[in-house]
Amino acid sequence: MIGSSAASGSVVGLDLGGTGINGARLSLHGEVLERVTIPTPVAEGPTAVVRAVVEAARSLTCPDTIGVGVCSAGLVDTGAGVVRRAGNLGLRDVPLARIVREAVGLPVTLEHDARAACLAEHRLGAGRGVGDLLLVALGAGLSAGVLTGGRLVPGSLGLGGEIGHAPVHPDGEGCPCGQRGCLEVYASAGGMVRRYRSAGGDPALSAADMAHAVDRDPLAGRIWTEGMEALGLGLRSAILLLDPGLVVLAGGLTGAGERLAAPVRTAVAGGLAWRRPPPITISTLGAEAGVHGAALVLLDSTGRR
Amino acid sequence: MIGSSAASGSVVGLDLGGTGINGARLSLHGEVLERVTIPTPVAEGPTAVVRAVVEAARSLTCPDTIGVGVCSAGLVDTGAGVVRRAGNLGLRDVPLARIVREAVGLPVTLEHDARAACLAEHRLGAGRGVGDLLLVALGAGLSAGVLTGGRLVPGSLGLGGEIGHAPVHPDGEGCPCGQRGCLEVYASAGGMVRRYRSAGGDPALSAADMAHAVDRDPLAGRIWTEGMEALGLGLRSAILLLDPGLVVLAGGLTGAGERLAAPVRTAVAGGLAWRRPPPITISTLGAEAGVHGAALVLLDSTGRR
Repeated sequence: MIGSSAASGSVVGLDLGGTGINGARLSLHGEVLERVTIPTPVAEGPTAVVRAVVEAARSLTCPDTIGVGVCSAGLVDTGAGVVRRAGNLGLRDVPLARIVREAVGLPVTLEHDARAACLAEHRLGAGRGVGDLLLVALGAGLSAGVLTGGRLVPGSLGLGGEIGHAPVHPDGEGCPCGQRGCLEVYASAGGMVRRYRSAGGDPALSAADMAHAVDRDPLAGRIWTEGMEALGLGLRSAILLLDPGLVVLAGGLTGAGERLAAPVRTAVAGGLAWRRPPPITISTLGAEAGVHGAALVLLDSTGRR
Repeated sequence: MIGSSAASGSVVGLDLGGTGINGARLSLHGEVLERVTIPTPVAEGPTAVVRAVVEAARSLTCPDTIGVGVCSAGLVDTGAGVVRRAGNLGLRDVPLARIVREAVGLPVTLEHDARAACLAEHRLGAGRGVGDLLLVALGAGLSAGVLTGGRLVPGSLGLGGEIGHAPVHPDGEGCPCGQRGCLEVYASAGGMVRRYRSAGGDPALSAADMAHAVDRDPLAGRIWTEGMEALGLGLRSAILLLDPGLVVLAGGLTGAGERLAAPVRTAVAGGLAWRRPPPITISTLGAEAGVHGAALVLLDSTGRR
């Protein structure tokens, strides 16, 4: 019944990633009321990707929906509502918030996917009660969401969290970005698969599979170990700078569970001899974090929380 | 005349560093009314260091003084008012705020020196109007002060900003902290002098002298260049994570001016090919930043600003 549902209201959260668009309509208390998952038509070009986001938003909104929160991979200018550059999505300078707003006639916010996930873990997941939180999203690329004093850190240009291109191995292997030794070359799911295949590994193996093959496939074992060590180096720099109370590992690779978390903890602790390392844990919201975080950003923007 | 001076009030700022204690009594508008600079008696042990801080505080307070803001090198727990560990000062778990408070009978705050300097540059110096600010203090050691959204980031344990031990060269040269390849091994004044002397350089040369000797002393040139490149690596990681609107270089090494700033800018820009690097500038408050910042922290704590 529209009447009573309008009294409570709903919000749509959309998470735009390189492989799929995850969407849900949520109650204002965060219960999932309806879900949509569609592949991201990256191969069909940016217009098709934007159209798919608009369709997902339209299909989920209903009369009681108060707004749509979108989060996206790539370089996201939250204030302007623009995806500045998202290589895995083929987007560049797309005013996604305005486009979706005009299509659905509702308030729309845009946030970076790792920042949205960080907010969701802080409010609803592994980071509840932790005001200084670092979330690292391991997927096709690698980026971070930072919360200090309970507030997200977008940075001066909305580019905060792009540690995938932090130089963990100066003069190391080349990165598609044009630089050398970037963290995501070694530690993202995409980077590990590229390194494994180019060294002659089984082309059918995904990065998540590699985590389970480390004992029987020495090449997978080496690439996985080097990835975890690189992640340890990147995390050490971030931990020393920010002193987070908790580090949450998120994104596609977290299906590996302790095969991911345990070696990362070891790599971090081994390089923070003079201070206690923060706890490092796996996201509890998993693939849902982006959708919930995007919806929370929209709710915060309307003053409803 | 005490009467009229009491009406306006004053605040004492003290900056405790490895070589000296810099102190001043300031008007509530930040004018310096009186100054004290004394050597830090590190060789005489922690009791003597604490006594020197207390004496400096006593000598500067007058009847209209509303409180004493102290900032210190080392690991500083701002909330607890405790210097957890300061190798260059020989201090460990010293409740400095309480000790000074009991000695002078006034409110006392304790802050990390780089965070205090960052706040001062934000309010009074090179970073005015910049809410996302990164300050790097280059002295005997190397640490950072971080401001996001206009607020200092102390971190969950008060250990934020300790990027001197970020691993810029994994498996690099040993650091007194027990790890390898730490940023401050290469880029702090103390680290550059150690590297220069152990390679046979002129024992009379300071790090600041090295900056001016790079053209006639090839060893000084190499050590200086490697230091600036290491600082570029450390800054790239920090810039990617936080996206500051400005980077301020502070501390003893900044006397080198453009001989410091120019190569750091080059090293940073060379490794941020896909994004615009933030401006990098030299502190305008120089050696005064800590004193002003310590006083500002005290004023903020009393609600007077």
